[in-house]
Amino acid sequence: MNIDMIRAAATRLDGHARRTPLLSSPFLDAIAGKPVFVKAECLQHTGSFKFRGGWSALSGLPEERRKNGVIAFSSGNHAQGVAYAAALHGVSAVIIMPADAPKLKIENTRALGAEVVLYDRATEDRDAIGARLAAERGLTLIKPYDEPLVIAGQGTTGLEIAAQAADLGVHEAEVLVCCGGGGLTSGIALALAAEAPGFKVRPCEPEGFDDVTRSLATGKIERNAELTGSLCDAIITPQPGDITFPIMAEHCGAGIVVREEEALRAMAQAFQRLKIVIEPGGAVGLAAALFHADKTDAPAVIAVATGGNVDEPVFQKALATLG
Amino acid sequence: MNIDMIRAAATRLDGHARRTPLLSSPFLDAIAGKPVFVKAECLQHTGSFKFRGGWSALSGLPEERRKNGVIAFSSGNHAQGVAYAAALHGVSAVIIMPADAPKLKIENTRALGAEVVLYDRATEDRDAIGARLAAERGLTLIKPYDEPLVIAGQGTTGLEIAAQAADLGVHEAEVLVCCGGGGLTSGIALALAAEAPGFKVRPCEPEGFDDVTRSLATGKIERNAELTGSLCDAIITPQPGDITFPIMAEHCGAGIVVREEEALRAMAQAFQRLKIVIEPGGAVGLAAALFHADKTDAPAVIAVATGGNVDEPVFQKALATLG
Repeated sequence: MNIDMIRAAATRLDGHARRTPLLSSPFLDAIAGKPVFVKAECLQHTGSFKFRGGWSALSGLPEERRKNGVIAFSSGNHAQGVAYAAALHGVSAVIIMPADAPKLKIENTRALGAEVVLYDRATEDRDAIGARLAAERGLTLIKPYDEPLVIAGQGTTGLEIAAQAADLGVHEAEVLVCCGGGGLTSGIALALAAEAPGFKVRPCEPEGFDDVTRSLATGKIERNAELTGSLCDAIITPQPGDITFPIMAEHCGAGIVVREEEALRAMAQAFQRLKIVIEPGGAVGLAAALFHADKTDAPAVIAVATGGNVDEPVFQKALATLG
Repeated sequence: MNIDMIRAAATRLDGHARRTPLLSSPFLDAIAGKPVFVKAECLQHTGSFKFRGGWSALSGLPEERRKNGVIAFSSGNHAQGVAYAAALHGVSAVIIMPADAPKLKIENTRALGAEVVLYDRATEDRDAIGARLAAERGLTLIKPYDEPLVIAGQGTTGLEIAAQAADLGVHEAEVLVCCGGGGLTSGIALALAAEAPGFKVRPCEPEGFDDVTRSLATGKIERNAELTGSLCDAIITPQPGDITFPIMAEHCGAGIVVREEEALRAMAQAFQRLKIVIEPGGAVGLAAALFHADKTDAPAVIAVATGGNVDEPVFQKALATLG
């Protein structure tokens, strides 16, 4: 992985991914006690940054492989990003999802043009199903984060942050990134190391699911004890990736851990002050910016609002924190 | 009013107002039956397009007048836009609001740096209060829509729409604008007449408050029978402006009237598919796009989501339409 791969991805994404805005509000600055900027990736196609990685992977495949189609395992944002990127490339996408995934997510993924293959979590092996389908049809597997083309696509977010912050006169900041497997975090870290040396990435995670924070602290890959039970489900992964972790270890500052309730309050502030919809997992960076600014040293913070795919009941729970 | 005034305003706004994104979703296209684009002015500073007019007016005043400060009558988006634009110019703003305005709006306007002067709707004459303050302190009144500098500022939205739509290959569209006094609608209409001749503006209003639609139909200024009682309060005005109406009569197509319930459903779609927060009055254009596309002839529609300053209870009412 290197900056040239991210720059090449930016060229491929140009005119296809959205250049999402960098937002701010004096009301958020007042909460944090320093300037807060929010990179609104919830406004990306399919409602999360995952479209960047999906497009980067699809557009980076050789034509003879791409035309056979792609396959991904996901019930969430990665599925939608890959499905839509494939549809726009005019190739087929198979998305393998658990049969008990929310019906709306299954419907949305189908509506974006993908073939959804359901499996029973209790009795079936999804990897075996995927391997069989890939072999039968010549599909290419698009991994959610431990894949250079995907990391390169997510890293284009960092190139935009560097340019947009410079336009606003911001040259020194900590960049707070909601972190799951580390695809986005490592991509942004590589981009900023090359383009904005005054910026330092800080991975942000929900309490109880802080594998990256602990891995950075010990210097080796640590696992989460649990993989379910968080409202921040979009960013819960077993452990940092084999490719993403060394990049994070080289370029990132210490992780920041936030409480689930803080993520909900950050969602409410984003609603009230920025007029954007973010999901709990996508609000962890903003929660760190607003409620843990004392753990940052830079004169400004930039939070990446990574996704907005939240159902109404959870959003209403967030709004209730305003009362 | 002419296009040169809008271009001059664009130069003054550059680097100060946000270039808000033009969003879309295949799910919205499916509802409308044609491509739908949404100009997300709810993401503008202070949560509505009104910041453009406020900045345009402040920056367009001669220095010797500006330094004395400005005054505006408003309990809503215009107040916040003027207050913040004045604060960023380092000059004082007096905002005259009814004493029974929502406490949060009063607090927000003060937090943006304005001096709020409250009056009793039943016993006091706000125009007299404003005239006295303006005379005593040399303040300049910034009218909400019937003022060329304000129309020029709002019109910059139209310049951006023309450029962003062209980037997407859209050269023929109807532009559905939530319409109150007509400042935004007439500004966009003038901008598009000059920059995008394949585009036609259609003013959009809530049922029962369709003064502009009726005025365009009869060719003379018609009044609303009522001025309260709509969730779409942000765009309820007594009648089109003396400056804005002739511009709309020359450049706009017929108005489109939507039901309040359709505005709520459009807010819910914007939440679910675009991840933006819009207020009822700011959703009228999107409601027309989604639920009245049969009244449009162009192959695509562009709805302006004019503002996002909505309280939680009303937003929850909108979310409830998804159930």
